[in-house]
Amino acid sequence: MAEEVTRVMVAVNESSMKGYPHPSISSKGAFEWTINKIVRNNVSAFNLLFLHVQVPDEDGFNDMDSIYASPDDFKNMNQRDRIRGVHLLEYFVNRCHEIGVVCQAWIMKGDPKEVICHEVKRLRPDLLVVGSRGLGPFQKVFVGTVSEFCWKHAECPVISIKRKPDETPQDPVDD
Amino acid sequence: MAEEVTRVMVAVNESSMKGYPHPSISSKGAFEWTINKIVRNNVSAFNLLFLHVQVPDEDGFNDMDSIYASPDDFKNMNQRDRIRGVHLLEYFVNRCHEIGVVCQAWIMKGDPKEVICHEVKRLRPDLLVVGSRGLGPFQKVFVGTVSEFCWKHAECPVISIKRKPDETPQDPVDD
Repeated sequence: MAEEVTRVMVAVNESSMKGYPHPSISSKGAFEWTINKIVRNNVSAFNLLFLHVQVPDEDGFNDMDSIYASPDDFKNMNQRDRIRGVHLLEYFVNRCHEIGVVCQAWIMKGDPKEVICHEVKRLRPDLLVVGSRGLGPFQKVFVGTVSEFCWKHAECPVISIKRKPDETPQDPVDD
Repeated sequence: MAEEVTRVMVAVNESSMKGYPHPSISSKGAFEWTINKIVRNNVSAFNLLFLHVQVPDEDGFNDMDSIYASPDDFKNMNQRDRIRGVHLLEYFVNRCHEIGVVCQAWIMKGDPKEVICHEVKRLRPDLLVVGSRGLGPFQKVFVGTVSEFCWKHAECPVISIKRKPDETPQDPVDD
């Protein structure tokens, strides 16, 4: 049987409804599925790698209250984003600690689908797990889906875990 | 932690080069990956379900030597196909027996991608594993890919396992 641990990368993001530090429904579901169906009680055989990709805030829509008057203001904003991301990762790292599975977690900035595939290339996990909102073809045209891009382009096997029907919010684009 | 076993359906087919009873490179690879990376030594926590879908032989190309003169001839042909399929499944069932993981295996006839999705619906496995030849977009136009269809339509999480580059035959459509 395999001697090395199985390294599972899990891409996670924040809830679009509750915001940081709450994980999205689909990333929480993907994590729980991985623990319940794959890792199970064989905790010493798996390492989990949590990647959170932050999308640079292009139009500053979420920062209407902020005034940027100096380079320090931007530094502070970046610092604040980072801290929010760390709190999101804390949720997953704490869960792993409870369960007893070794993990690591880190934050990157950029286009999530591109960054995830790049990190797969760099770190060569055995498996990539991504949550999926399970959108229909019509909805996908407008929002794009990270899971489909990763399935096609990531250089490792990919599982996408769809949300359960009873977890889907009123607007299925929310997560 | 989960009490029930994790049920993994693995779709398998015969080698296009060596024919029955040899498994295709990609289905052998998908099986070995599942054992090495997911099941590992936690054999009692998993059940494997091997599904082999036989494509009805439309033009009789593989049966040039046969003469069909009575209904019994067709019965015999069906019987022979079945036996070939059983020998393919024997390979996987024997491997599971060696490893100590509980499994079951069965044969269906029809369009593999449709039948696989139908069987997922019927049996509700936790995970479907399919091998993939890893063909480029140009090659796919001509041969279609079961893995992509299943990824989109199967009602459970799907992993497709691409062949290793050093296992790819001269003609990548072969398997």
